[in-house]
This record gives sequence, C-alpha cells and structure tokens, in this order.
Amino acid sequence: MTDTTGPTEPGSPADAPVAAPAPERVHLDNGGGAPLHPLARQALLQALDDGWADPHRLHTEGRRAARLLDGAREAVAEVLGARTEEVRFTASHASALRAAVLGTAQARRRAGGDVVVGGVERATVLHAASAAAQAHGGARVVVDVDRHGRVDADAFASAVARPGVALAALQHANGEVGSRQPLAAAHEAARDAGVPLLVDAGASLGHDVVPGSWDLLAAHPADWGGPAGVGLLAVRQRVRAVPPDPEDADPWAPGGVSVPAAFAAAVALQAATADRAAEDDRRRRLTDRVRAAVAAVPDVEVVGDPDDRLPHVVTFSCLYVDGEALVTELDRAGFAVGSGSACTASTLEPSHVLAAMGVLTHGNVRIALDRSTTSDDVDRFLAVLPAAVQRVRDVLGVGGL
Amino acid sequence: MTDTTGPTEPGSPADAPVAAPAPERVHLDNGGGAPLHPLARQALLQALDDGWADPHRLHTEGRRAARLLDGAREAVAEVLGARTEEVRFTASHASALRAAVLGTAQARRRAGGDVVVGGVERATVLHAASAAAQAHGGARVVVDVDRHGRVDADAFASAVARPGVALAALQHANGEVGSRQPLAAAHEAARDAGVPLLVDAGASLGHDVVPGSWDLLAAHPADWGGPAGVGLLAVRQRVRAVPPDPEDADPWAPGGVSVPAAFAAAVALQAATADRAAEDDRRRRLTDRVRAAVAAVPDVEVVGDPDDRLPHVVTFSCLYVDGEALVTELDRAGFAVGSGSACTASTLEPSHVLAAMGVLTHGNVRIALDRSTTSDDVDRFLAVLPAAVQRVRDVLGVGGL
Repeated sequence: MTDTTGPTEPGSPADAPVAAPAPERVHLDNGGGAPLHPLARQALLQALDDGWADPHRLHTEGRRAARLLDGAREAVAEVLGARTEEVRFTASHASALRAAVLGTAQARRRAGGDVVVGGVERATVLHAASAAAQAHGGARVVVDVDRHGRVDADAFASAVARPGVALAALQHANGEVGSRQPLAAAHEAARDAGVPLLVDAGASLGHDVVPGSWDLLAAHPADWGGPAGVGLLAVRQRVRAVPPDPEDADPWAPGGVSVPAAFAAAVALQAATADRAAEDDRRRRLTDRVRAAVAAVPDVEVVGDPDDRLPHVVTFSCLYVDGEALVTELDRAGFAVGSGSACTASTLEPSHVLAAMGVLTHGNVRIALDRSTTSDDVDRFLAVLPAAVQRVRDVLGVGGL
Repeated sequence: MTDTTGPTEPGSPADAPVAAPAPERVHLDNGGGAPLHPLARQALLQALDDGWADPHRLHTEGRRAARLLDGAREAVAEVLGARTEEVRFTASHASALRAAVLGTAQARRRAGGDVVVGGVERATVLHAASAAAQAHGGARVVVDVDRHGRVDADAFASAVARPGVALAALQHANGEVGSRQPLAAAHEAARDAGVPLLVDAGASLGHDVVPGSWDLLAAHPADWGGPAGVGLLAVRQRVRAVPPDPEDADPWAPGGVSVPAAFAAAVALQAATADRAAEDDRRRRLTDRVRAAVAAVPDVEVVGDPDDRLPHVVTFSCLYVDGEALVTELDRAGFAVGSGSACTASTLEPSHVLAAMGVLTHGNVRIALDRSTTSDDVDRFLAVLPAAVQRVRDVLGVGGL
C-alpha cells in the first residue's frame, strides 16, 4: 500500500500490517468463512467491471448488472431446486434469517404468535424468534436436542402441531458440531400443521445435499467459498411473508445488494456443486481420520453425530483445557482452528450449542476443512495436537501427569 | 468465463452476457453507485487475500482481519472527526439508517414515540420512522421542504422542540437534487431539545465536507467509490441506542461485515478526501456549466439549490417528456443518466423528493459526476441533450413544434 496516494498515518488502512501468512500455515477454521474459491475470485473481478451499476437502472450499465444478478439467482435456484423468482440475495446471512423469521411471523400473526425453533439454531434465529414472538403476543418454543445436537423429530412435530404457531425454524445441519437435523420429518409435520418451515442451510449448502424440505431457506455464501457481504434467502411462492421494507426497490434487501458479490457467490456455489460428491467423500474420509485420532488423546471427547453429519466439520472438547489457550497454542504451531460458539465466534463464552447438547462446553475446538485442505495438512495437525493439548494442561498443572 | 470449470447452462452466471461497454460510453449516473476507485479496487484485492477470515477469531488470520477492520474504522473516524470506537461498518447503508432510527427510538421510548424527519429524506428513513413511531405509540412528523428541497430551519427546530420526540433525522444533502440542508441549525435545535439527530450523509460523504453536527451518522461507501455490500454507521458515545441484535458479536451488523469491503471503503474515502477540494471545485464548475446549458433548453427546469448544494449532482425536469423514454434515448446516444426517484431507483413512479418540492415530477433526469468524468464528457452530453429531448417530444407529438 506504500505506492498509493492515500494517507499513511499510523493506524490508517494504508498502514495496517498485512504481511502475507507464512506458507506453511494450515487454516482449519473454514466454517462460516473461507478463502474465496478461485473461480469466485475471478467472477468477482469480472463483475466489479461489468456489474457495478444499480441493477434497477434502465441504462445499458444497469441492465448489464441486472442480467448478472438474474443469472446468479437462476444458478442458485437450480442448485436449490427452486424457481428463480423464489431466490433473492440479501445483505448478509444473518439479515436473511432475521427477515425470514420476522416477516413470516408478521404475515401469519393471525394464526398465532408462537415460533418453534430447534435447540441449537444459530443465535440470530433464537434472537429473532424471541423478538417475533414478543411482537405478536406469543412465545418462543425451543425443542430440545440430544447429545449429538439433534432435535427429536416427534418432539418437533408435536411442537408445530399445537395451535398458535406462526413459524417453525430448523437448521439443515449444525455448523458447530456437524450433526444433521431430521429435516424431512420436520417439514412433513410442519406441512401437516400448515406452519411454514424456515431452514437454515448456512452451514450445509455447498457442502452437503440440501433437501427440498423447506418453505423458506437461508444460506451463507462465505461458507461455501463465496464472498462475505452477501446472503441468500429463498421463499417458496406459496409462503406469505412481509419483507423488511415493502416500499423499497429490493424489499428483502433494502438498498440493494452487491451484484459482484452475488455473482461471485453463485459461481462459487456452482463450482462447489460440480465437485461436491468427490470433494465431500474426500473430506469425510479426512474427518473420519480426525475423529478417530482425536478420540485417542486422553480426556478428549469428539462431539456431534459420527455418521449423520456434515462432511467437513469435526468438533472436540478437551477436559482441563481452556479453549482460548488451546487455540493460541495451536496457532503458534501453525494451525488455525475455531473455538467457542460458532455463532458468536469471538467471545469465549460457553457455546450455547454444546450447552444444549449437555457436553463439555470448555476447551472445545472446531475444525472445518476447506476444499484446499490436504491429507498432509490433516496429518500434520494430528501430529501436533496431543502435545499442544498436553502443553496447555502442563501450564494449568492438570491432567495426564 | 468459458475457461472455468463451472456449469455453463443457459442463464447461469457463467453464461450471462457481460460484453464490455463500448469505450465511448459516458456514465453520468454515479449517485449511490460508481465504479470502484482504483485504489479501492487494489485494497479490495489485497484484503481478499489478507482479510477474509472472521475478525473475531483468535488465530493469526482472524487477528489480521481484525487489524484491517480496526484500521478501516480508524481511517473513517479521522475523516468524520469521530472516535474510532464510534464508527462501525454495517451490512448496507440502508441497514445503517434503519438500525439507527429503530434503535434510537427504542432506547428513547420513554421520552416519547415521535420521530421528526425532513420531507425529502431517503425512503428507508421515512419508512423506518413510520415503523419506529408505530412501535412506540408516536407519530412520524414530516417537516416540509421548499422548492429547492430544503427544510426550514425554524420549522425543524419547532418540530424537535415539542415534547415526546424520540429522534430527529435530517440528511446532510439531498442526493436526488443536491441541495444541502441547514444541518448546523437543526443540530443546535435538537441538542437544545435533548433529541438525538441522525444525519444521512449517504449522498455527501466523500464529495462534500460533512460537518460534525450529528449524533448518529450513516453513509454509503458505494457513493464515494467504495464497494457495494457494506454501509457505515457512526454513533456518538453519548447517544443511547439499541442495536439490532445485542447478543451478536457484531450487534450493529449481526453476522459481521465483509472486511475486504470495509477496508476498500475506507481506502476509497481516504482517497476521496485527499483530493476533495480540487475535485469538488472541478466538478462544481462542470455542474455549473450543465445547469446553465440545460436551463437554455426549451421547457426544461433545473431543480435544486443553485449554490448551496453538492458539487457533482444536477437534476432537471423536462416538460412533455416521459423520464423512461428520455433515459432510453440518451442511453442509445451513449450516455447513462438517472431518472425517477434516486431512492427507489428502479420504479419510474414520481419521485417523492420532487413531489415534496412541488416541482415537475415527470421527465426528470439526474446526472452525478464521478471523479473520472471529464470536461469533454460533459461537453458531449450537452451537445446531444437538446436533440434527444426533442426526439422524445416528437414521438409524443408535443412541445417545441
């Protein structure tokens, strides 16, 4: 940045330290955000040139941006098995979830004010469900999960079948521990009850086959190798929902979205879908290896369903270990891993997902493999992990000694 | 895109027609969205490599993203004359405005439910003000504007001084017609009344000196040469406001923002600020020339304040002319211009701004000059405009004959 004409005062962006990472580093924290897929990067650059204009404008540049956006919607719709007009981009994954919950609850307020949610939904869903229920005189009804983080299909069905339910929300799979939810059964129960089901596919789309068992679906482009700064919301035509700003030219994304980001997101999804079967099989073998090796470390528990799960996510909890210390120790050894709740990310507060599952909430580590993660990366990680855990325990003077 | 491995079904992004514009085209519709500033493009590419990780993570990649984001906030804060911790990026300009209105109204609901707004605020502000007032048992109080689109400072002061006002909102300058608002007087009146003032600088920051007369300020990076897909919200530390999701790691931008977009936005603002004085002087001379030339076309009225205005915006209304037809005619001649409301952009519904000003609401054209717009571009535009207007009138069989 020293060759730019911008100011270079200390602390300004032009002066921020941005040294490239040492090449030997291994990034295993790719859930919710991974490096841009190379094709998405190429698409983004192309669309910055061709799709920067407002797609609602009538001139050549505006119409060109509109074509890029429409093409992106069509490509995503094809992957989802939806109609193009049912698919729209939003400002973020969180805003898609929030708009879906609040807008459906508002449209269906005469049916009741209750919102049924799975016990390990993303914090945004849990928060929006409370807000929606409060706004319409209902309650948030949380369906408990088992030790794998999965709701009981019968319990979910009972919850949605009660009178007064405006909306139900269930994730396709949990991004923090990988377990899939019983989506088909949940959707059937919701349909029988006449209750729309919102499916959060934010951790699965692009990694796993997302079934058509949804009425509204939100997803997270940065999770599948697309850019940050854009989200995805699909709403079946039969579903009534009030968008955040009905008077805006983009009622579900007031002020519009980044066309380049949307286009790059769609290209990344196409690319991820094209090699999904092979890539997921490869990553499933790697995560199987991680699960087995990690379980052999003393006082370490692998969490999440061993089989019915996302292909690329493994989470484990280490007794006697502080999560922050272990992340830092592994970082020092060259490995980036996640810890704490995947939803609040930052805070090392106990994960609400792990707490709901009744497993250890401290000393947990999540790894999520990218398409660029190699077998060698995983071997190297497994080679350093036991000693890293032991070093943290040594400092605390606990465990294994 | 034919060299990619992605699917190439008709209508897919990989297949969307994206021919480069003919080099002779002149894009004069740069309000709210312009081509990326070259330095911002460079910064975006750099940050896609260095700042893609979640800035809340504790590992090297996360901390590097956090440094980029902090640097971006610091750079913007310096331009605004604010503290770094008062500045945050949001998912979009619209979400910043909406969160500011709703969050301030909620925090101050005991003071009252009324929301005072200028008559030509952005549609998002008008809509959010209605929603906030409705939620807290108050009313939206609209302060009328004069023929230049400017609120009367005394009328605004009276409105905020009445009891029961939670919040007042006034734009710095109107993006559709360019007129500046009496911000200093409005802020003084609001301060005297103990009412926080939200200033929408979405059309001015990066083009004009934005005074410190605000308690909350929202702005629009794509308007100053930054990327789309990110917004800006500054809230003075003394102001009480409830963010959209207090439990999220990013309460004002739930789910986080695109760090690369935020970094590029800050670099673009630094670049725009560095040459603002020279650039604004240059563009003011060009818009003066446009105003004089356009006013000489029969039955064409230039709207907006001739002096106390943004440097780069000119809007005019053509009697007997349909706006859509004129945009299309000028597009055919190689010139992209805006029409209709700048806020809803798409729709050719009568502009609420022009309607509030009491001027012609049809056949209006807005041009907003980019930094890349040359004197020659403007000359060529002025050379073709009279004949284009006449051709549209000829088709309709009206005017001038």
